[in-house]
Amino acid sequence: MQEIAFKALSVETLGRRLGGVAAVADRVGGAAENWKIREVGDGNLNLVFIVEGEAGTVVVKQALPYVRLVGDSWPLPLKRSFFEYNALVRQQQRAPGMVPEIFHHDEAQALVVMEFLSPHIILRRALIKGEQLPRIAEDLGLFMARTLFRGSDLSLTPRVRKEDMALFADNVELCDITENLVFTDPYFDAPMNRHTPGLDPVVARLRADRDLKVEAQKIKHLFAAKAETLVHGDLHTGSVMVTPGDTRIIDPEFAFYGPISFDVGMLLANYWMSFFSQAGHETEGSRDAMRAYLLSVIEKTWSVFRTEFSHLWRTERTGMLYHRSLYEDQGDDLASEQALGHLLHEVWTELLGFAGVEIHRRILGLAHNADFEDIADETARAQCETAALAFGRHIAVNRRHIQSLAEINALAETLNGARKSMLAEKAS
Amino acid sequence: MQEIAFKALSVETLGRRLGGVAAVADRVGGAAENWKIREVGDGNLNLVFIVEGEAGTVVVKQALPYVRLVGDSWPLPLKRSFFEYNALVRQQQRAPGMVPEIFHHDEAQALVVMEFLSPHIILRRALIKGEQLPRIAEDLGLFMARTLFRGSDLSLTPRVRKEDMALFADNVELCDITENLVFTDPYFDAPMNRHTPGLDPVVARLRADRDLKVEAQKIKHLFAAKAETLVHGDLHTGSVMVTPGDTRIIDPEFAFYGPISFDVGMLLANYWMSFFSQAGHETEGSRDAMRAYLLSVIEKTWSVFRTEFSHLWRTERTGMLYHRSLYEDQGDDLASEQALGHLLHEVWTELLGFAGVEIHRRILGLAHNADFEDIADETARAQCETAALAFGRHIAVNRRHIQSLAEINALAETLNGARKSMLAEKAS
Repeated sequence: MQEIAFKALSVETLGRRLGGVAAVADRVGGAAENWKIREVGDGNLNLVFIVEGEAGTVVVKQALPYVRLVGDSWPLPLKRSFFEYNALVRQQQRAPGMVPEIFHHDEAQALVVMEFLSPHIILRRALIKGEQLPRIAEDLGLFMARTLFRGSDLSLTPRVRKEDMALFADNVELCDITENLVFTDPYFDAPMNRHTPGLDPVVARLRADRDLKVEAQKIKHLFAAKAETLVHGDLHTGSVMVTPGDTRIIDPEFAFYGPISFDVGMLLANYWMSFFSQAGHETEGSRDAMRAYLLSVIEKTWSVFRTEFSHLWRTERTGMLYHRSLYEDQGDDLASEQALGHLLHEVWTELLGFAGVEIHRRILGLAHNADFEDIADETARAQCETAALAFGRHIAVNRRHIQSLAEINALAETLNGARKSMLAEKAS
Repeated sequence: MQEIAFKALSVETLGRRLGGVAAVADRVGGAAENWKIREVGDGNLNLVFIVEGEAGTVVVKQALPYVRLVGDSWPLPLKRSFFEYNALVRQQQRAPGMVPEIFHHDEAQALVVMEFLSPHIILRRALIKGEQLPRIAEDLGLFMARTLFRGSDLSLTPRVRKEDMALFADNVELCDITENLVFTDPYFDAPMNRHTPGLDPVVARLRADRDLKVEAQKIKHLFAAKAETLVHGDLHTGSVMVTPGDTRIIDPEFAFYGPISFDVGMLLANYWMSFFSQAGHETEGSRDAMRAYLLSVIEKTWSVFRTEFSHLWRTERTGMLYHRSLYEDQGDDLASEQALGHLLHEVWTELLGFAGVEIHRRILGLAHNADFEDIADETARAQCETAALAFGRHIAVNRRHIQSLAEINALAETLNGARKSMLAEKAS
C-alpha cells in the first residue's frame, strides 16, 4: 500500500479519492463522478460525508488534525481515527450488530467508511423531542455488559489484554480531553468553562464545595488508573443512533482501557440530564410520561446490564480473574456468586461517581448538551440545571451509601418538583 | 551497534566478551584475561557473575531464556533484563542512591553490569540470623514513597506515564508468574504447590475458606487492573541488600504499572513472616528482642512511607491528579489534606490484602522463603507457618476493618504465643 500524506476530503475530491477503493465503490455503486456527496459534520471534531450512489449509501468519517469546531488553534492527532476503527472492530466482535458495519479504514488518511444508518436519528434528539424508544434499555444494557466483560481480564488472556491496553494507551490526547474537560475544569474557574447566567450563585457554592471537589478527583484517579477493560469512552446519548426497532452505538474515538463503570455511569448521567431537562421542553404539553419513561429506562438499563454481565460471568469467565478452578470446580458455586456480587457492587459505587461528574461538566464545562441548551428560556434552563447539579452532587459524594436506583430516582423526582424554589433560594 | 544473537556468558567467556566494553573495562581495570570471575547465581532465574580486577569489582547479571532453577522446560523471555534495566534507571532517578549503580546494559545479550555491593548481605539472611539493621525502615520507607509517588499521575505528565505503562505492559510473562504463583495457585491444589507436611489440616481448611478465596481474587483483580504507578514488583527481603549503614534495592525485573500498595504490602508481609519464623531460630537463645525489632520496623516503615508520601504530595504534586489549581490555589489546603488522607487510607486497605496474600503463597505455593525453610524441625516450622497463615488470612479478609498497625502487631504477638496450641488444635 502506498503511503500518501494526509489530505482532508471535500465534496469535490471524495469521489476521485475513494472511487478506486473496491470496498467503497462496490457498496455505493456506479461511476464515482455520479455519487451524490453531502458534508454533514458530526458537530465537534471531524468531517463526515454521506455518499450516495445507485447501489447504496455510505458514511465517510475523516479526522482532521485539529478540533473542527475550534479550528487549528486546537490541534488533535489524526490517529484518533485509528483508535475509533480498532474500537469498532472489537465492539462488533464482542456485541455483534450494535455498531455500524465498517467497509474501509485508511490509517494515513484518518478515515473510516461505514454503514449509513437510516432512518436512524441521534438518541439525544429523540429524547428532547419526547420520543420514547422501546429498545434502548435492553440494547444498551446488553452492549455495555458484552463489550465491558469481554474486553477485560474476566474474558481475555493476560497477553491479549495487556497488548491491547498498550495499543490504546497511545490515545493520550483524547484521554487528555476527558481528564481536563470532564474531571477538572468544571471545578475551578477554567478559561473554557461557561454556564447559564442564572447559575452564578450555584457555581460559587460548588467551587467552595470541598467534599465534591475531593470526590471528583478521586473519580478522576479511578478513570486514569483502573485499566480494567476497553471502554467506549464517550457513551452519551449523542453517541447512539436509534429507530424504534434498532439501536447503534457510534463514535468510539475516545476508547481506552478504563473502569467497567465508566461507560455505564456516563450513559445513565445523560438519561438523568434528559429527565431534568424535560421541564424546559413542556411547551407542547406535559412531559410527565417522558420523565417516567426515562427513569424506567435507567432502571432497566442497569438491570439488563447486571443480568447479562452475570450471565457472562457464569458462562464465559475464561480469563485469569476469579478462575473457575478456585470456585465452581471446587464445588463452591456460592464463592463465584459472592465474588460477582462484590464486583457488581463496586461497579455500582463507581458509576454513581462518574454519573455525578458527567452532570457537572455538561452544565459547567465547555461541552454542554442540547437537552439543556435547547431550552431558550434562560430562567427555566437554570432551574433545570440547578436541580440536575444538586442531583449530581448528591450521587457523586454519597455514592458509597446509596442502596438502589429506586432511591435516587425518587430523589430525582423530588428535586425536579422543587427546581423553581431551589433556584430562587440560591439566588437570594 | 552490531546485533549479535544471544549467548549465555560463562566464567571462561565473560572476559573476552565484556573486555572491550569501556564502561566495564575501565571500572574493573587491567587486562580482561587477568579478571577474577566467579559465578554466584541469584537463586532462581538468572546468571550472576562477580568480576574482579585491579581497579575494582562489578556484578554481571544475565537473563537466560528459561528459569535457571527449573531449566528449559520453563521458558522465560530475555526481555526481562530490559525491564530490569529500565526499572533501575527510573528508580535511580526517583530515589537516588537506593539501587546499585548501572555501568552497562546490553539488550540483545540480556545483561546488566552494575555496582558490586560489599560488604552487603541479603536482608532476609540478616533477619534469619537475628541481626537488627538500623536503617531499613527509614531507607525502604523513603524508597517506596519516592518511587511510587514519582512514577504515578501525581507526578508525571499523562503522556509520559501512559507511554511508560505501555512499555512495561510487555512484561507479560513476569506478571504472569505473579498472577499465577501469588494469587491463584495457593488457593487450589495446583501441581507446583508444596507445604510442610504438618500443615495438611490447615491447608484443607483454607481450600474451603470461601471468604479468603474471594478476597484473594479481588486482590488479584486490583493487581491486574490498577495501573497506578511503576512498582518494583518483587519487593521482598530477598530483594534488599544491606549493611548496618546502607540499604540497596535490587532485582526489579518484575516491574510493571500496578497499585501503589503492592510493593508496600509485599515488603511488610515479609517482615511479618520473619517475625513468625523467629521462634524456629531460637536455638541460640530467645528472639524476643528480634521480634520486637521487626514489629517496630513495620510500624516505622509505614510511618516513614506516609510522612514522605505526604511531603511529596504537598511539595511535588505536579501531575494531573488532585491538581493544586483545585485546592491550594483556591485557598483550601484542607481539601488537599482530605484527598491525601483518603488516598493513604486506600493504600492501607489494599496493602493489607497484598500482605495477606503474599504470606499464603510463601507457605503454600511454589516459592517458599528461607525464613521458614531454614527451620529444620518440621513441627516447629509448621507451628510458625500456621500462626503466619492465621495472621495472613485475618488481615486479607478484614482489611477494610483494621484500624492500625498497633492493632495487628498485637494480634501477631498473640498468634505467635499461641502457635503450638493452634497447630495441635488443627491436627486434632
